[in-house]
Amino acid sequence: MDQILGSTTTAISFSGHSCWYFGYLVSHKKYIVSIDDDCILARDDQGNLIDVVAQHISNLIQPATPFFFNTLYDPYRNGSDFVRGYPFRLRSGVNCVLSCGLWLNLADYGAPTQAVKPDERNHCYIDVILTVPTRAMMLVSGINIGFNREAMGLALFPGLRLSREGKIRWETMEDIWCGMCAKVVCDHLGLGVKSFLPYVWRGDSGDALESVKRDGKGEADEEVVPFLTAITAKDCMSKIAVIVRERLALLDPVFNKAADAMEEWLKLWEIVGSDV
Amino acid sequence: MDQILGSTTTAISFSGHSCWYFGYLVSHKKYIVSIDDDCILARDDQGNLIDVVAQHISNLIQPATPFFFNTLYDPYRNGSDFVRGYPFRLRSGVNCVLSCGLWLNLADYGAPTQAVKPDERNHCYIDVILTVPTRAMMLVSGINIGFNREAMGLALFPGLRLSREGKIRWETMEDIWCGMCAKVVCDHLGLGVKSFLPYVWRGDSGDALESVKRDGKGEADEEVVPFLTAITAKDCMSKIAVIVRERLALLDPVFNKAADAMEEWLKLWEIVGSDV
Repeated sequence: MDQILGSTTTAISFSGHSCWYFGYLVSHKKYIVSIDDDCILARDDQGNLIDVVAQHISNLIQPATPFFFNTLYDPYRNGSDFVRGYPFRLRSGVNCVLSCGLWLNLADYGAPTQAVKPDERNHCYIDVILTVPTRAMMLVSGINIGFNREAMGLALFPGLRLSREGKIRWETMEDIWCGMCAKVVCDHLGLGVKSFLPYVWRGDSGDALESVKRDGKGEADEEVVPFLTAITAKDCMSKIAVIVRERLALLDPVFNKAADAMEEWLKLWEIVGSDV
Repeated sequence: MDQILGSTTTAISFSGHSCWYFGYLVSHKKYIVSIDDDCILARDDQGNLIDVVAQHISNLIQPATPFFFNTLYDPYRNGSDFVRGYPFRLRSGVNCVLSCGLWLNLADYGAPTQAVKPDERNHCYIDVILTVPTRAMMLVSGINIGFNREAMGLALFPGLRLSREGKIRWETMEDIWCGMCAKVVCDHLGLGVKSFLPYVWRGDSGDALESVKRDGKGEADEEVVPFLTAITAKDCMSKIAVIVRERLALLDPVFNKAADAMEEWLKLWEIVGSDV
């Protein structure tokens, strides 16, 4: 890391979960699939082990349909098609660049919710590949994700760090922040984002109540979502950094660091010679 | 019908599927559930008969979440909640006014698709109540629908009729047109629309190939969706101008001048050739 990053990076930290992003940076693959280390293979509702990599790649290779919701599920899946009334000019779909798989067992609650419902588990396997419509915000978690690095890998970066960040997903913010930025960028570029399949099985994490006691700020800042959904800039990422500095940093200096990190990230991406 | 409509209606026809809308018009109920006569009760994946009315009402009574996609499905359902990072200020949701149930067996294809795939059936029961995000267009079909008549019943109307309309859903346009108008209205008012549950079982319809031969126009006009999704600032401004003239000008004539000015501005905008 030191060799590649040199002394240029002061704002970006690749510790903890953020070490994944270093891998995204130096990879030269077109597609990347990334799964957290507390996940194992899940089984579908027939009891078969799910090939999570194959499903992510399939999601990315098949088009997405962000502009019109298909009430017959994924129209590109065998045995399905476009519903009556679906405009023909939208039936070729758009390039899918982000595949946000879900997970069974440990439900992905924030620390406060998890603390209140420590025994609640997600056992609901939904056999659907869903394009999340354009301009709908969502949690794009790095827990189980596949993406087209060439098309939008640059937009996944660990920008926003809490001052007292922990090691468990619900003690961090970079995942939530990063995912919302990525979704905004995909929407702006007219690219597709899918969710639901593929599932992984996620093991239990730490004590949520302890996390809440240590730092109550385990959820997305209420300012972030309205801010991100209102972006209309042309050069998404650098423009976002500028506006973050101008507006959000007034509320909390932690956003200044996020902006620094974003700008450094863009420089790094160029230096490392990515082709995006 | 004649008694109520008198000789005032020349443009609206309540024949065929459109007779449902007459019922919506004269009802005084808050909630209406409407199911086509070729549908029977379906069974869920446990083999239990689905109480379609109860599920529609439940969908309408529980809030909807159109502004942020919840990757843990319906957060108001037992055993579920909001995913990590879901903004707290959005967790109370919005009023759900439209519940678009789906159907098993006969897939809801347009006539051309149905003609090409006459044997394809939908047997995929997806046990999810999904809020369709705001500004995502969709087919809101009257085949299996529940809605809040007080809040948006007016927006369901059989406006667009084909000159040679048939008796089968895929030979009509009013359903598709009506649904898209209704979705646009709900989005504009910040109200919620849900889909997937509840399912009904839909029996087979007529010969799609015959429908295609008789009238190829069995799909949504390609102009309709771009038109409805592209309701522009100009459309809004001119509508505001009309309302300003109708209502505010009564209070103070200065508003007449404002409305005049707004309309001139719109003309100017066109003349100067702006691309908005």
